[in-house]
Amino acid sequence: MLIGQVIDTNSAWIGQQMSLLGIRLEARLAVGDDEQEIRNGLQFLRTGADIIFLTGGLGPTRDDITKKTLCGYFGGKLIENEAVKQDVTGFFERVKRPLLESNLQQAMVPDCCEVIRNPWGTAPAMWFEQEGKIFVSMPGVPFEMKNLMTERVIPRIRERFQTGVILHRTLLTAGIGESFLAEKLRPFEDQLPEGFKLAYLPNLSQVRLRLSATGPEGKRLQVQMDEQVQYLESLIREDIFGYEEDTLEKVIGTLLNERGETLSLAESCTGGNIARRITSIPGSSAYFPGSVVSYSYEMKKELLQVKDATLEQFGAVSEETVKEMSAGCRVRFHSDYSIAVSGIAGPGGGTTDKPVGTVWIAVRTPDKVYTRLFHFSRNRQQNIEMTTIAALNLLRKILLGTVI
Amino acid sequence: MLIGQVIDTNSAWIGQQMSLLGIRLEARLAVGDDEQEIRNGLQFLRTGADIIFLTGGLGPTRDDITKKTLCGYFGGKLIENEAVKQDVTGFFERVKRPLLESNLQQAMVPDCCEVIRNPWGTAPAMWFEQEGKIFVSMPGVPFEMKNLMTERVIPRIRERFQTGVILHRTLLTAGIGESFLAEKLRPFEDQLPEGFKLAYLPNLSQVRLRLSATGPEGKRLQVQMDEQVQYLESLIREDIFGYEEDTLEKVIGTLLNERGETLSLAESCTGGNIARRITSIPGSSAYFPGSVVSYSYEMKKELLQVKDATLEQFGAVSEETVKEMSAGCRVRFHSDYSIAVSGIAGPGGGTTDKPVGTVWIAVRTPDKVYTRLFHFSRNRQQNIEMTTIAALNLLRKILLGTVI
Repeated sequence: MLIGQVIDTNSAWIGQQMSLLGIRLEARLAVGDDEQEIRNGLQFLRTGADIIFLTGGLGPTRDDITKKTLCGYFGGKLIENEAVKQDVTGFFERVKRPLLESNLQQAMVPDCCEVIRNPWGTAPAMWFEQEGKIFVSMPGVPFEMKNLMTERVIPRIRERFQTGVILHRTLLTAGIGESFLAEKLRPFEDQLPEGFKLAYLPNLSQVRLRLSATGPEGKRLQVQMDEQVQYLESLIREDIFGYEEDTLEKVIGTLLNERGETLSLAESCTGGNIARRITSIPGSSAYFPGSVVSYSYEMKKELLQVKDATLEQFGAVSEETVKEMSAGCRVRFHSDYSIAVSGIAGPGGGTTDKPVGTVWIAVRTPDKVYTRLFHFSRNRQQNIEMTTIAALNLLRKILLGTVI
Repeated sequence: MLIGQVIDTNSAWIGQQMSLLGIRLEARLAVGDDEQEIRNGLQFLRTGADIIFLTGGLGPTRDDITKKTLCGYFGGKLIENEAVKQDVTGFFERVKRPLLESNLQQAMVPDCCEVIRNPWGTAPAMWFEQEGKIFVSMPGVPFEMKNLMTERVIPRIRERFQTGVILHRTLLTAGIGESFLAEKLRPFEDQLPEGFKLAYLPNLSQVRLRLSATGPEGKRLQVQMDEQVQYLESLIREDIFGYEEDTLEKVIGTLLNERGETLSLAESCTGGNIARRITSIPGSSAYFPGSVVSYSYEMKKELLQVKDATLEQFGAVSEETVKEMSAGCRVRFHSDYSIAVSGIAGPGGGTTDKPVGTVWIAVRTPDKVYTRLFHFSRNRQQNIEMTTIAALNLLRKILLGTVI
């Protein structure tokens, strides 16, 4: 993975899983597809860690050298494994693809490891032990690795290790900057007990707050954590939209589902990104009849009944236009709520009056319309993402009644 | 970044930039926000590398300890830097946000480094040298880091190092699996000259092929690379949709722009994801009037004129329905081409006849309609992504005339 064209999401996920077990991630290391580099990396990591996870390099192509390298490193040889051979054959029958010779190579495994069968793909995982250290090699395909970890590897790790506890709680905020949060949270940080730590993880208009606590196993730490979280919440209640793996779209979906109400969208500068997020939630069809991306003037008029005069007088990026878009959208989709956005995502299209990043958002409810103006001044992708977050967060606050 | 809730995209990007300079990435290491761990990491990395890049930990909050740690590691002390102070003050004036005391702390910099001013944010970068090794510390916000690297750091690196050359060429394929590509490319791999290497980087329905060559600087390696790329292309011409940073949506945008033709979309199971990708391209408004996400039966009928009888007889996920959706969409948006997709993204909604992952795609041109059936059988997010790629790739092939 070293050239940098592939983003490593695996190690982040593994770290998260380990931290839930109270196992501290000591380091993450990436090295090239080179036998010597892999060996050097193993030597470095085993000095500081008890468990070393390896992902990738187990595929059927020639640049996949991890299996051979590990086999040599632990002094074994490759032998055919009948169970894995059946798994591979079965996998290709199931996905109705022809089995290639190179795929059968995946049934050759080192005789110095415990093979962990992989029903989600073709390359099995391998569990090596040496001098009290554990090495687990898994395929790099995230879907396969995550299933192998959850179903096969983590249960074994749990059996083997009894550690102290690390607790984590993540609170998710939107629409407030890191420095402002830090100001509001100063009294909280000033009183944090020994062993507690607060981390700010900012990403565009969202900041994840991760509170960690280390200590001996038992109920006391959990109680302390609950108290600390309650205090933290009391300082920034309206900025928090969720916890842990929540997303704005998930929170909104839950709110709409509870009420049996529906939402439609009229997107201009976000180009379908809000719809994509809303529909990423399983079951969203219950509250989302659909949406329009009205990129052109014509479509704003034809599909959303925006008036010619409005576009001419105020332009597409204006409070008046998003108001009319939201009205047309709500009628078109027979929905309870609608969101309309129009802005200049860039890099072109900016003017002195309305520079790149200027965005108008309207949220319409059965009896009211709310509008907001934003100046994001970022690049195209970031302007789109920040608009999406701002729109979803405004709807969320309206649904909760915290915006009047 | 160690708990694993933040995905590290920075190191991947830096690796890519260095490889373009012919500087080989030796390793990537992530350690926790802990002074001793940072020091240990620096000690390990400096034994194998000439340049060490550090990102993150320079923010205004208390968990940001990189600056203090580096200052101590290199034996300096923090002093106020007047230029940085002005930068920080100016930045907050520009974004119209109040300046907090914590932000002014960013003007305190180690006296043992060269400060690299940061007009894109508030924390400056720092360039340390010790025993012939270079250490560059930058903010972790990707936008700031990338600008600092491109405008300030890379020019300095170029001045200092004269290395051998590593060439990379990336060919992008869609719609063909890794094993099938490997079969087609066997004769190519069998003849690869010394110093050349081919890597397969699969991601859902796309595989990036990265061909690398190392050798002395000069024209010969470049010529050899060109020959190898030509041979590779000749074996899989129709599978290649682009090169390097190309995307399907970029390639399609270029084709539509050249012809002055337009595209509209009627998305069901992809929920706006195709529109998002089309509109991620600056200037896409020239060929994209807009699109519809028709999630409900009603909207398929009202917005796209799909017949009641069609939905009743064949269901929403059927060849007949996507044909009618594509026809209604083309008329609705007055476009030359239209794409319509309907499928079962999952996890719910599957039946024996049409299991989760069943997807119908239609692409309509001024005089013909093309339909395709897919069985992706993945999770929701992957089914959506694979449908998006398949739809865009089908349109691309139709535009190029390689599908009849």
